[in-house]
Amino acid sequence: MKDFMSPFLTNEKGILLAYDQGLEHGPSKDFNEKSVDPKYILEIAEKGKFTGIIFQKGVAEKYYDGKVPLIIKINGKTSLPKGEPLATQNCSVRHAKALGAQAVGYTIYLGSAHEHIMLQEFGQIQAEAHELGLAAIAWVYPRGEAIANDSSPEIVAYAARAGLEAGADAVKIKYTGDPQTFRWAVKSAGTAKVFMSGGPKAPTDEAFLKQVKGVMDAGGSGLAVGRNVWQHDRPLEMAAALKEIILNGQTIETALKRFSK
Amino acid sequence: MKDFMSPFLTNEKGILLAYDQGLEHGPSKDFNEKSVDPKYILEIAEKGKFTGIIFQKGVAEKYYDGKVPLIIKINGKTSLPKGEPLATQNCSVRHAKALGAQAVGYTIYLGSAHEHIMLQEFGQIQAEAHELGLAAIAWVYPRGEAIANDSSPEIVAYAARAGLEAGADAVKIKYTGDPQTFRWAVKSAGTAKVFMSGGPKAPTDEAFLKQVKGVMDAGGSGLAVGRNVWQHDRPLEMAAALKEIILNGQTIETALKRFSK
Amino acid sequence: MKDFMSPFLTNEKGILLAYDQGLEHGPSKDFNEKSVDPKYILEIAEKGKFTGIIFQKGVAEKYYDGKVPLIIKINGKTSLPKGEPLATQNCSVRHAKALGAQAVGYTIYLGSAHEHIMLQEFGQIQAEAHELGLAAIAWVYPRGEAIANDSSPEIVAYAARAGLEAGADAVKIKYTGDPQTFRWAVKSAGTAKVFMSGGPKAPTDEAFLKQVKGVMDAGGSGLAVGRNVWQHDRPLEMAAALKEIILNGQTIETALKRFSK
Amino acid sequence: MKDFMSPFLTNEKGILLAYDQGLEHGPSKDFNEKSVDPKYILEIAEKGKFTGIIFQKGVAEKYYDGKVPLIIKINGKTSLPKGEPLATQNCSVRHAKALGAQAVGYTIYLGSAHEHIMLQEFGQIQAEAHELGLAAIAWVYPRGEAIANDSSPEIVAYAARAGLEAGADAVKIKYTGDPQTFRWAVKSAGTAKVFMSGGPKAPTDEAFLKQVKGVMDAGGSGLAVGRNVWQHDRPLEMAAALKEIILNGQTIETALKRFSK
Amino acid sequence: MKDFMSPFLTNEKGILLAYDQGLEHGPSKDFNEKSVDPKYILEIAEKGKFTGIIFQKGVAEKYYDGKVPLIIKINGKTSLPKGEPLATQNCSVRHAKALGAQAVGYTIYLGSAHEHIMLQEFGQIQAEAHELGLAAIAWVYPRGEAIANDSSPEIVAYAARAGLEAGADAVKIKYTGDPQTFRWAVKSAGTAKVFMSGGPKAPTDEAFLKQVKGVMDAGGSGLAVGRNVWQHDRPLEMAAALKEIILNGQTIETALKRFSK
Repeated sequence: MKDFMSPFLTNEKGILLAYDQGLEHGPSKDFNEKSVDPKYILEIAEKGKFTGIIFQKGVAEKYYDGKVPLIIKINGKTSLPKGEPLATQNCSVRHAKALGAQAVGYTIYLGSAHEHIMLQEFGQIQAEAHELGLAAIAWVYPRGEAIANDSSPEIVAYAARAGLEAGADAVKIKYTGDPQTFRWAVKSAGTAKVFMSGGPKAPTDEAFLKQVKGVMDAGGSGLAVGRNVWQHDRPLEMAAALKEIILNGQTIETALKRFSK
Repeated sequence: MKDFMSPFLTNEKGILLAYDQGLEHGPSKDFNEKSVDPKYILEIAEKGKFTGIIFQKGVAEKYYDGKVPLIIKINGKTSLPKGEPLATQNCSVRHAKALGAQAVGYTIYLGSAHEHIMLQEFGQIQAEAHELGLAAIAWVYPRGEAIANDSSPEIVAYAARAGLEAGADAVKIKYTGDPQTFRWAVKSAGTAKVFMSGGPKAPTDEAFLKQVKGVMDAGGSGLAVGRNVWQHDRPLEMAAALKEIILNGQTIETALKRFSK
Repeated sequence: MKDFMSPFLTNEKGILLAYDQGLEHGPSKDFNEKSVDPKYILEIAEKGKFTGIIFQKGVAEKYYDGKVPLIIKINGKTSLPKGEPLATQNCSVRHAKALGAQAVGYTIYLGSAHEHIMLQEFGQIQAEAHELGLAAIAWVYPRGEAIANDSSPEIVAYAARAGLEAGADAVKIKYTGDPQTFRWAVKSAGTAKVFMSGGPKAPTDEAFLKQVKGVMDAGGSGLAVGRNVWQHDRPLEMAAALKEIILNGQTIETALKRFSK
Repeated sequence: MKDFMSPFLTNEKGILLAYDQGLEHGPSKDFNEKSVDPKYILEIAEKGKFTGIIFQKGVAEKYYDGKVPLIIKINGKTSLPKGEPLATQNCSVRHAKALGAQAVGYTIYLGSAHEHIMLQEFGQIQAEAHELGLAAIAWVYPRGEAIANDSSPEIVAYAARAGLEAGADAVKIKYTGDPQTFRWAVKSAGTAKVFMSGGPKAPTDEAFLKQVKGVMDAGGSGLAVGRNVWQHDRPLEMAAALKEIILNGQTIETALKRFSK
Repeated sequence: MKDFMSPFLTNEKGILLAYDQGLEHGPSKDFNEKSVDPKYILEIAEKGKFTGIIFQKGVAEKYYDGKVPLIIKINGKTSLPKGEPLATQNCSVRHAKALGAQAVGYTIYLGSAHEHIMLQEFGQIQAEAHELGLAAIAWVYPRGEAIANDSSPEIVAYAARAGLEAGADAVKIKYTGDPQTFRWAVKSAGTAKVFMSGGPKAPTDEAFLKQVKGVMDAGGSGLAVGRNVWQHDRPLEMAAALKEIILNGQTIETALKRFSK
């Protein structure tokens, strides 16, 4: 099968800059005066040599400049509604391609009462994406009343596996907390690439780099990161540090040297 | 990207006359013997040199005379049903274009349990609108059980941002109460134009003009106004006053001079 | 805009014979041995010179003889289900046209929790009807848990207005009880024609004629009547009386003379 | 209108052998070692000279031999789910035709909270059936929380009428218990043919024949029977007895003579 | 009718290796370091000369090598959501064929409140499958609040029959516990092939072989087995033992000889 993820990989590894938090969490929760501006993010992506950038359709249409490979997230929801989570397709694969995307992203809320809707939509999206030459990346997030702990090793491995079975070229999943248990998730994903979901800003740079190192030690393909980069006061140094670990296979110590004193 | 909003803007600003309250609120709540008649509204729009007029399909078909640029609102609901708000598409984009519209409007009830239906429909509508050369304007109204205060700065900024991410050319949102917090909403909307939703008749002309001034000071693109104009006993003077602020960048004091004694 | 209602009007007024009560209320509630037979109704329609007749598809297919202009009601429900009212499309506009219809009718239960489904379906039906040259008539009935009184002046005016905004060529609404308040409903409907819904058999002929006179005095376009005609023991005399008022603009006294002693 | 039912009628009367109980009730409830086999049923249908046979798609595909006119039932449900009844289309009309069917059957659970889905589907099915030259037969079964007694004269007449209004060529309804009340149901069905639904095995042959005689005396077109034939130890004699009454207009006494001692 | 199952049968019997447990149950519940890898399963399938292998689309795309006839399971769900079970189509029949499949599998949760959705989808899938030359295999699993015991003889026979009526070429059902009662299920399935669903790892090899022998004695066509093979420490010997019983009609004793000491 064609490796649809290759536009986003350097030596089979990738570091993706995620920026759909404006829709998912709202600007007041995650953005400041700088990060609210997509141009600031594009600048980080370009200067930081990210291997991909993730936008919702609207941001891509108004801001994308073609310099970093594009993933359009084609579903999404706000954090406002109560009840079982559901996000449905808001952009066609064809439209995403026309905007320059080489991949589409789609969230599956595994375990939600609406899981079947998202598994079905993703099935159609994946087929259409491959037909048009795009990768289909699944954000697989176990969530809803049935999910007690969305980062337990068992549930993260389940997410990874569901992504593989659903035909994802790559899955974006939470970190389990240690490389031993994350390795099982990577194995469960088979030949689907595994990207850790960056999550909220970590307490220290080292703490975050340690997670990322764990992912790579476990056989992961990289990271989709947002807040830990663009909420950072030195985002390009954080990007450099992350690339040491992800693309160059370096240690945390080496990575930390990329931060100026 | 093409600026689909240009037909509705003068020096990048706009003042739109909204008239879908007959469906949204009912004639007995908002109309009197004069304002119940769409011809009265068209006359105000034309004489008042509004940069756009907003009708539901039915009113456009029976009354629109081509003199003021047309926005057709292609979803809508009455104020009658209880439960989580939902308004679905009642007019195709193609049909709206055939009626002379240069833009379509669509309400997204952010935070509603049915949010996903409206985000999905708007996604399709926006793509079709752009294909046909029309602007897609999102009325983004956080509403439903999950929304405590639909005009808090955070929720209004969230609405603005959701509109940007969803691909809206312009968003219609509530005023937050002051220009400082509204500025954040405008920033959150990025390059999407921001129009304040006029809302119910303000207690005094000055009070309303102060809101509008706040919007413009915050970087907004203008106003979509209904009741504060056509419920006014001197609608053309109110229109003139609004244009002083919106199109000419004048002060409230200057604007108030447009009212005869 | 083309006047799609013209096939059903004489001097801009109309009297329509409604006969979908078999589906809506059941035969045992509304029919007797004579009125249960569609041929009896067709005979009344023809001899009584009604300006239109209203059938569901099934009755039209098996009985319609082309002598009176036909309206096919393309949604409907029984009176049996509990819960929020919903009736969905059961006949395509194309099919209705093939059966000889020059208009389609569709009920919108305004205020129902399913209102959005009916507003959406009607939107599509109206567009298709006009494309094929048929009128789209909306039965606008506020109903459901949210509706306290479905014939209050406010709610009837709301129904009329919703029909206009939705693009109906004509609306069929309840009578408010007096011409003063009904006039407001007629104004709210704008240039959409307003037909009073005949309702259950009135206690006396005069009582019914008084309602109809009120409608016409208020500017209404006529009446869609079923039970007050075909449950009448002298249906043709009732038809003649109604036409005096509706088509000839006569008084109740003149109309009453059409009844033999 | 073309008489789509003619393939199933002899002198305007018909006797149909129903065999979808495997899906509707389950094999353990209704079948024995013989009747579980569709070949046994086909043999009865052929030797008993039934005027039609009713199968679900799966049985038709694997067993139908073209000897008796075929009706494919194109919706169905098991008796297992609780809640308001709903059966949706499981076979296209085109597919049914390709399998040799000259009619399609469809159950409408009148009064169910899902009534609108079935009325809508039947509307589409009926149109497509007639276009392809097939009859559309409605099983109209009032059922669900709203239905207190599904064989009261009023409710059975309502079912018959709903079938007519929906465009059914024939309706399959329950017996009301006596010919006087059933006559009203037949009248309510207008020119749609009325078939009694055979129901569970009657206590005695005479009891069942009496019901059938009542149907015919009331003006019915015949019977759709399953269990009272293929659960009978002498099914061909029962078939012969039924045909005496249905096709030959004979008395119960004459019919009973078809049973050997 | 064409025998669509023939690619999966040897002398009318078959043994299918099922491997969709990663989606249905999660990797942590059913897999170990070896069985988590689809290549390990493919190796067993090939060396064990299984007559078919069952994958979800994603696994087929990334791993299938064309050596063993392929069934793609085109719906599926995780074990996470609470509430009435529902799995909807996630892969088109056309797509399955393009991946090399000669059959598609689909689960119908009989008795679920969503039963009608699955009966409807399966109806469409079966028709499309046959048109494209593929078999349609129904996993018929009675499940949900309405089902007290999903392996009682009555409910298993109902499942088998529903599969036949729905048009399945083969059904995959649970074992009832003994050949006498399972024979009734086989009879109820008519000419549809009956495969026992392997279920969780049996306590002893003999216990499992006894179930399989019961299926074959009852007239079944074979087995779809996963965990009892690939969770076995000697999977090829288990496969050999199973083939003795299924394909060669041997006794349990003969089969047990295929296990090395």
